[in-house]
Amino acid sequence: MHKLIGIGAILGLTTSTAFAQSSVTLFGVLDASVRTVHNDGAGSLNSLASGGMMPGRFGFRGTEDLGGGLSAGFWLEANVATDTGVAGTPAPGPFWNRRSIVSLSSDRLGEMRLGRDYVPTFLAWASQDPFGNTGVAFTSSFTGPNVPTIANAYGLGSRPDVWTNSAVQYLLPKTLGPVSGGLMFTVTGANAATARKLWGGSLSYDINALKLTAAHVNTRIDPVRDHHKDTVLSGSYDLGAAKLSAAVRRFTYLDSQQTNSMIAASIPYGNGQFKLAYVVGKSGGNIAGVSSSSVGGSLLGLGYVHRLSRRTAVYTNFGSLSNQATSTYTLQTSPATITPGGRSRGVELGIMHTF
Amino acid sequence: MHKLIGIGAILGLTTSTAFAQSSVTLFGVLDASVRTVHNDGAGSLNSLASGGMMPGRFGFRGTEDLGGGLSAGFWLEANVATDTGVAGTPAPGPFWNRRSIVSLSSDRLGEMRLGRDYVPTFLAWASQDPFGNTGVAFTSSFTGPNVPTIANAYGLGSRPDVWTNSAVQYLLPKTLGPVSGGLMFTVTGANAATARKLWGGSLSYDINALKLTAAHVNTRIDPVRDHHKDTVLSGSYDLGAAKLSAAVRRFTYLDSQQTNSMIAASIPYGNGQFKLAYVVGKSGGNIAGVSSSSVGGSLLGLGYVHRLSRRTAVYTNFGSLSNQATSTYTLQTSPATITPGGRSRGVELGIMHTF
Amino acid sequence: MHKLIGIGAILGLTTSTAFAQSSVTLFGVLDASVRTVHNDGAGSLNSLASGGMMPGRFGFRGTEDLGGGLSAGFWLEANVATDTGVAGTPAPGPFWNRRSIVSLSSDRLGEMRLGRDYVPTFLAWASQDPFGNTGVAFTSSFTGPNVPTIANAYGLGSRPDVWTNSAVQYLLPKTLGPVSGGLMFTVTGANAATARKLWGGSLSYDINALKLTAAHVNTRIDPVRDHHKDTVLSGSYDLGAAKLSAAVRRFTYLDSQQTNSMIAASIPYGNGQFKLAYVVGKSGGNIAGVSSSSVGGSLLGLGYVHRLSRRTAVYTNFGSLSNQATSTYTLQTSPATITPGGRSRGVELGIMHTF
Repeated sequence: MHKLIGIGAILGLTTSTAFAQSSVTLFGVLDASVRTVHNDGAGSLNSLASGGMMPGRFGFRGTEDLGGGLSAGFWLEANVATDTGVAGTPAPGPFWNRRSIVSLSSDRLGEMRLGRDYVPTFLAWASQDPFGNTGVAFTSSFTGPNVPTIANAYGLGSRPDVWTNSAVQYLLPKTLGPVSGGLMFTVTGANAATARKLWGGSLSYDINALKLTAAHVNTRIDPVRDHHKDTVLSGSYDLGAAKLSAAVRRFTYLDSQQTNSMIAASIPYGNGQFKLAYVVGKSGGNIAGVSSSSVGGSLLGLGYVHRLSRRTAVYTNFGSLSNQATSTYTLQTSPATITPGGRSRGVELGIMHTF
Repeated sequence: MHKLIGIGAILGLTTSTAFAQSSVTLFGVLDASVRTVHNDGAGSLNSLASGGMMPGRFGFRGTEDLGGGLSAGFWLEANVATDTGVAGTPAPGPFWNRRSIVSLSSDRLGEMRLGRDYVPTFLAWASQDPFGNTGVAFTSSFTGPNVPTIANAYGLGSRPDVWTNSAVQYLLPKTLGPVSGGLMFTVTGANAATARKLWGGSLSYDINALKLTAAHVNTRIDPVRDHHKDTVLSGSYDLGAAKLSAAVRRFTYLDSQQTNSMIAASIPYGNGQFKLAYVVGKSGGNIAGVSSSSVGGSLLGLGYVHRLSRRTAVYTNFGSLSNQATSTYTLQTSPATITPGGRSRGVELGIMHTF
Repeated sequence: MHKLIGIGAILGLTTSTAFAQSSVTLFGVLDASVRTVHNDGAGSLNSLASGGMMPGRFGFRGTEDLGGGLSAGFWLEANVATDTGVAGTPAPGPFWNRRSIVSLSSDRLGEMRLGRDYVPTFLAWASQDPFGNTGVAFTSSFTGPNVPTIANAYGLGSRPDVWTNSAVQYLLPKTLGPVSGGLMFTVTGANAATARKLWGGSLSYDINALKLTAAHVNTRIDPVRDHHKDTVLSGSYDLGAAKLSAAVRRFTYLDSQQTNSMIAASIPYGNGQFKLAYVVGKSGGNIAGVSSSSVGGSLLGLGYVHRLSRRTAVYTNFGSLSNQATSTYTLQTSPATITPGGRSRGVELGIMHTF
């Protein structure tokens, strides 16, 4: 990431301290890997994949010191598919699809943030995922895009399990020691027929090597006024030789549920890191009227990152997804079909560069 | 806004003076507000709105000193909806929808500018609007998007009342003392069936506290070769304790007319500012074959801006729009319907941050 | 182009040498011209055209020195139509349509590059074209967009004759003296029904005033597994008073061929340059089942560039395209029709500015 020189600095009006406090930063990630994924009954598919280690992106963010412990800030961030150059979400979706916010912060009182942002349940899950919720060992393989999850079953256009538009957030101040967290709700009424109102929040306790987070998001689906609930409990403990983490994410809607459970480890090794994750996805009740008792699977992810610098790495990941009974989950960028109950396995070798 | 260091500056080849003259600037505005709008007969609609005080945007602009009083420049600027992250106009519309120009300027001879830019009538109106032609007290509520104005009635895809593509502009030099202005015409013939040729210009007289502007834009609609005319007279006088302004904008096409009249005031108060505008919109003749004698309304806008710094403000705006007879004008981001002749009222509270 | 200051530099941790090696650069081109094109039997069409001298663009690129002769880098570049502000390719096309790559380079071993990039045959042709493959004297007028070339005849969505997605490239190190070049292949299997696999490469010999390049790209069209072949031989010799160049580009597919042959000259004159190109396009065999023996034409391009600085120029170009027999090739931004066998002639006057 690169900070841009403020006008004040150019004119010699500010000290380097003030300058460091008020700045605009250009930042991004380019990440591409050669990947092959094999599905039982469907053969293999090779691809140049994007975001094997970190989702590609670019953006601008900035803060302004307003004095008296008050600051203002903004953050604009767009997805970039390194293999094709596609950025953002196709219209009418947002270009700045990863974040679009303006905020006011007080050291003592916390932060008020307005705009498009991550929902707290996603952050609680992804922060404990050594694979960063991306790549061939995608730990949201049972809830991601194009998967018949509860979220998709009731026809939500954009996934409220990752981002939401039109959010008002209050984040706790950073002065509370081990405690952090926040509240989020959306103010969306532009189209009453499809409006959904979201509220939620998270609370984290972070002391020495231990971090624990609880997060919940409730989305009211109008006009039926049913509620989609998304709850995450996650934690990690850093042993030094390894960081161990675990997370459970549970979605419920009407009489259906889906639960994802993850245990994971991240093991520093020289300049790099070994990564390990095991995820079980299990559904229950009826999803869109169909019994989901036999819907589920498990994912094993293994990875190794070799850092060439703080900003650049080469990496390899392996993922193996096993379906329960008649389920047809697959890894990402896999062949289009899979034998019900079959396995989807993949491996990738890639380059990741941040700026 | 943030100037980027030129290569010359990095290599130590230029003085800070030369450096200030040749630069690229990254700039933008993020602005979001919590808004509620009530329409008679339709209840209220809450939303996280974008651009309550200034339309969200980001862009790059630069100038290069060519010596001898000559300079070159460019300006790329895209709209940003802070609430959703949507940028630009959906394809096939432009990404850099707020401006895309390249120009050559001479201190003595003026500027030649090529590309997409504002039409001079819009600038003449908006420059006298304390609400910056945005927000819940949108002073173009009778001529804006999705309003059955004359411009819309003949099916123009993009509004030539704000921007135009393919413009050639000549702008008077800045050495003429109180006089400024320019001429604009478009060179568009790519699709003869929908081509429209625009020409126009503006002239301003700006001395001490007084500013007066006259602007006119004529758009020829092919293939019928009828002319849409757009004329603005505006002015302001800065009393110190308050800046008073007034503007009249008149559209005519065939036997129809629409006239918008505004009086406004901007009153500095501490670090902030009170704002006031009253607009009357009135139609006449037949718009698309229907008598418009009963089409019209009035808008009252009140606002207060509290500046936290030169770059950041919190603000509140109130707008009240009253329809004449059977008209159904509404404020922006309002419920979808309104009782004919009813009132649309709204209030918002927001954060605006520039960089 | 403008280099941005790295964080290290701000904190005073790096020397200016290290700083010059690790940087992010913002760059771009804005270019607009007033153009008129006349087609026999169809009259003239005027337009504000974009990219008369250089295609409009903006982007970010960067390199990071990893030590030991190793470096990492990225390049994101989007097209910009200066006349309208349109950027990138309309969705689902890429925003960063001109380049999206991440790479690792070794001084001794060469560069490994992943992502969307130019195919080597395009670069071999365009590098010998004094008009830069753009403008009213567009030297790819017989193979460009919306022209019934072989590439278009078999329904390829994006043109593999300019860019390709999903490329893996190996580029020779810069330490081989006069020899440079590289290999490219694509890893694309996401949609088996429309997949095409591309492989190719180029080799250049560049010594003193002489440059010679051979390039070849083979695209396998699935599922039929037919091969589209694209071969370029090009060269130039710099006499000092003029740089002379020539190129031949031949496309073959099934029993059809198309050959473009160019001779060109670039003649420095004061701060500027005269430019000259003559291109003959000739088809043979059957294109999509129709005999192409009478399909062809020739193009004469003349241009003059007057440089106001290293970054800014004004220019004029003239193009005249003559069709063979019943061919209906035209210059770009011309009237929609032309008399078969007729001439398309155009002239433009423009401003080009880089940053």
